Amino acid sequence: MPKDWSGSGVDLHLDPDTAGGRRTGLERALRAAIRTGRLAPGDTVPSTRALAAQLRLSRGTVTAAYDQLAAEGYLTTVPGSGTRVAETAQPAPTGPPSPPGTGEPVHDLLPGRPDLSAFPARAWLRSTRRVLAAAPPEAYALGDPRGRPELRAALAGYLGRARGVHADPDRIVITSGYAQSLGLLAEVLAGSGTTAIAMEEPGHPFHREVVRRHCLKIVPLPVDDLGARAGPLGRAGAAVLTPAHQYPTGATLHPDRRRALTARARATGATIIEDDYDGEFRYDRHPVGALQGTAPGHVVYAGTASKTLAPALRLAWLVLPAHLVEPVAEAKRLADAHTQSLGQLVLADLIGTHAYDRHVRASRLRYRRRRDLLAGTLRDRVPHVRVQGIAAGLHALVLLPDGGPGEAAILERAATRGLALMPLRDHWQNPSGRPQGFVIGYSTPLAAAYRPALDALCSVL
Amino acid sequence: MPKDWSGSGVDLHLDPDTAGGRRTGLERALRAAIRTGRLAPGDTVPSTRALAAQLRLSRGTVTAAYDQLAAEGYLTTVPGSGTRVAETAQPAPTGPPSPPGTGEPVHDLLPGRPDLSAFPARAWLRSTRRVLAAAPPEAYALGDPRGRPELRAALAGYLGRARGVHADPDRIVITSGYAQSLGLLAEVLAGSGTTAIAMEEPGHPFHREVVRRHCLKIVPLPVDDLGARAGPLGRAGAAVLTPAHQYPTGATLHPDRRRALTARARATGATIIEDDYDGEFRYDRHPVGALQGTAPGHVVYAGTASKTLAPALRLAWLVLPAHLVEPVAEAKRLADAHTQSLGQLVLADLIGTHAYDRHVRASRLRYRRRRDLLAGTLRDRVPHVRVQGIAAGLHALVLLPDGGPGEAAILERAATRGLALMPLRDHWQNPSGRPQGFVIGYSTPLAAAYRPALDALCSVL
Repeated sequence: MPKDWSGSGVDLHLDPDTAGGRRTGLERALRAAIRTGRLAPGDTVPSTRALAAQLRLSRGTVTAAYDQLAAEGYLTTVPGSGTRVAETAQPAPTGPPSPPGTGEPVHDLLPGRPDLSAFPARAWLRSTRRVLAAAPPEAYALGDPRGRPELRAALAGYLGRARGVHADPDRIVITSGYAQSLGLLAEVLAGSGTTAIAMEEPGHPFHREVVRRHCLKIVPLPVDDLGARAGPLGRAGAAVLTPAHQYPTGATLHPDRRRALTARARATGATIIEDDYDGEFRYDRHPVGALQGTAPGHVVYAGTASKTLAPALRLAWLVLPAHLVEPVAEAKRLADAHTQSLGQLVLADLIGTHAYDRHVRASRLRYRRRRDLLAGTLRDRVPHVRVQGIAAGLHALVLLPDGGPGEAAILERAATRGLALMPLRDHWQNPSGRPQGFVIGYSTPLAAAYRPALDALCSVL
Repeated sequence: MPKDWSGSGVDLHLDPDTAGGRRTGLERALRAAIRTGRLAPGDTVPSTRALAAQLRLSRGTVTAAYDQLAAEGYLTTVPGSGTRVAETAQPAPTGPPSPPGTGEPVHDLLPGRPDLSAFPARAWLRSTRRVLAAAPPEAYALGDPRGRPELRAALAGYLGRARGVHADPDRIVITSGYAQSLGLLAEVLAGSGTTAIAMEEPGHPFHREVVRRHCLKIVPLPVDDLGARAGPLGRAGAAVLTPAHQYPTGATLHPDRRRALTARARATGATIIEDDYDGEFRYDRHPVGALQGTAPGHVVYAGTASKTLAPALRLAWLVLPAHLVEPVAEAKRLADAHTQSLGQLVLADLIGTHAYDRHVRASRLRYRRRRDLLAGTLRDRVPHVRVQGIAAGLHALVLLPDGGPGEAAILERAATRGLALMPLRDHWQNPSGRPQGFVIGYSTPLAAAYRPALDALCSVL
């Protein structure tokens, strides 16, 4: 039964906060009363005279507030019977609770994250200052879906020099992270008739999710010590590869395989997507140049700032064969117009002033030491496990011996020590009967936390 | 016929740039020779001895460079017959030329862009400095797909206060611009069985493209002086509306229509997407609060920093009914993990320090003056055209009289004066027989360029 508050404002206990102006405060208080159900649909609200007297406001203020709420649909005025709460103004349903505060692990050796305490915040700020001082108004407008020309030019030089990529700025598209790069490519490939895509087995489970979202079938591309095998590429219109440092096994793609894969792509017209996620980080020798450099008409080069700088920047890039530039740029335009410009301009400045190279070099030294410490410590203290893969990147695959405790048992022990570990099993499409182990992200702990994390790892292995 | 360079390095004219080290320079020169076709597939490369002598390098350097290129697949070593260029190492096809340098217009009155010379670069830099000084390492890691908690909390307060939005930080998802917001919603709606979406007619053509990409049918929602009509909402599972300031007609949604639309949504379970692209800018009165505030369980509120700050920031937000939070956050995670964090933290700081409010207030005054000048100038100098819509936003619809020159004739005249104009025709799904006019973006020209642009407009109308 609707209430009639028309003679009174007293019982409503409206307590307008007038900091933003009396009328605004009253409007807010009325909206809150309606939303919380204190004023229910159909209720007649206090007369302007009664409410004005009660709240010591002018009658004009109350009338203006009522008009405003009527314009917003909260109130409705029925000639002759006063102003009522609209029947459609219901209290808001309560949202779901926040995800429970998952207790942070004490030790974190999950892969995929550089040492974030080393983020070059001062260099980033310096470049931001330069960019903001120099940016023309046009830099704040919507621009080319491929991204800022300054960054594409800087990357073309950097990628040619550091990774042997055949990079023309016109064929570069800047994206908001590798997941988006892969999603855009999957969308374009699916749109042009591709139905299946070959992905390394084992491989990154999140990347499979991204590809599946575009309704592409995944053909497993088996990986051994020489990297991915070329065979299954014939059955798929495209393949995603990690040639420099296979994720998660750590193999580098053998020259014969490189040749076989590009030859197969040429023969069948298939597209190879080269995920060069950590190509800058090789410790035992000069890094092997990008596969793209040997077949730029058939290989898409995909790079990212997530491992060299930080994942939260969401900055990545594609170097595309000519025929894919326009469709990928169009997919990017429809997805989000283009990647935000300030971050692109700052990264272009970091590359142009060589601050980026200096940071990569310093990081390489740091991660090399961490990898050496991991390998040495495991050799000394847990000799029954095997560290697999080349000396590169930010992770190592640690394989468990047959017959000992498996992933599940070790994960249980790790949980009691607050140690976060990534089991290998999640990387297989079908994990049964596969070797067991852990993908150790040795770059993840902050500097001071690394040795304690290694101690915890040794004790649970 | 493959050449045999084995006895000589001279004719190759390799000219390594040794700035990055001798071996690296030689590798780059060899890659370039292969890519440009000077070294063709099957060619035997110079012997290490000959090339070392020619280039005055040590033989070890040349051997190391050859090994590197063999590892990369450019070269192949055949025991007994020397090192050859791999058959698969072909020259790169040339990319498409850059889009022709479309001459910038002299006068730009296209809609959709705030005055970018007023971007608060100093405030942005100040906030960036604070954010970088205070950010914990975790701020550089991947985070919640919904976005930074700091920004969601700041927006919940701001949107409640400034726009009457019922905003719980847990139900906010930060996106990379309104196009992405709309795309994510379209994807989620299509995935849950929605087949058609009602969109205002006339409306934004780009937004129709975004929706069509997700294979949703578009039902036109006719717009008159009272805003969109509620009727067609029954035939579609969702509707996109611009209640505060219809784009492009400039109408504000009448209270009766607001009630009818939310009542229809409640009755049918349809979702209303409220595109509040310029809700902060109302000049004749206090802005009408968001529709979402009257029906937060049925209306998605979509806001953006594109009009208040700059489109190139690619920062926008959704306030969602409880049941859409999880699916939209999951779509966002698969699209690009989350929106980049630094920009979010800077915007949160701008809102928290009220620099954002100050900028919005100053912009409101500036745009109000521009709108008054547009209306006054047209009234005085081109009285046969009509400026339609409420005093709000960053654009006005200028309608042409029947019988005079139409859009096409005026666009031709405008082109000769270097004046960029947006005709109304592009906003209709079926433009034949519709009123003609132009959507004038009066915020677009930089401050000093506004009067000359108005002069040009008057002369072509």
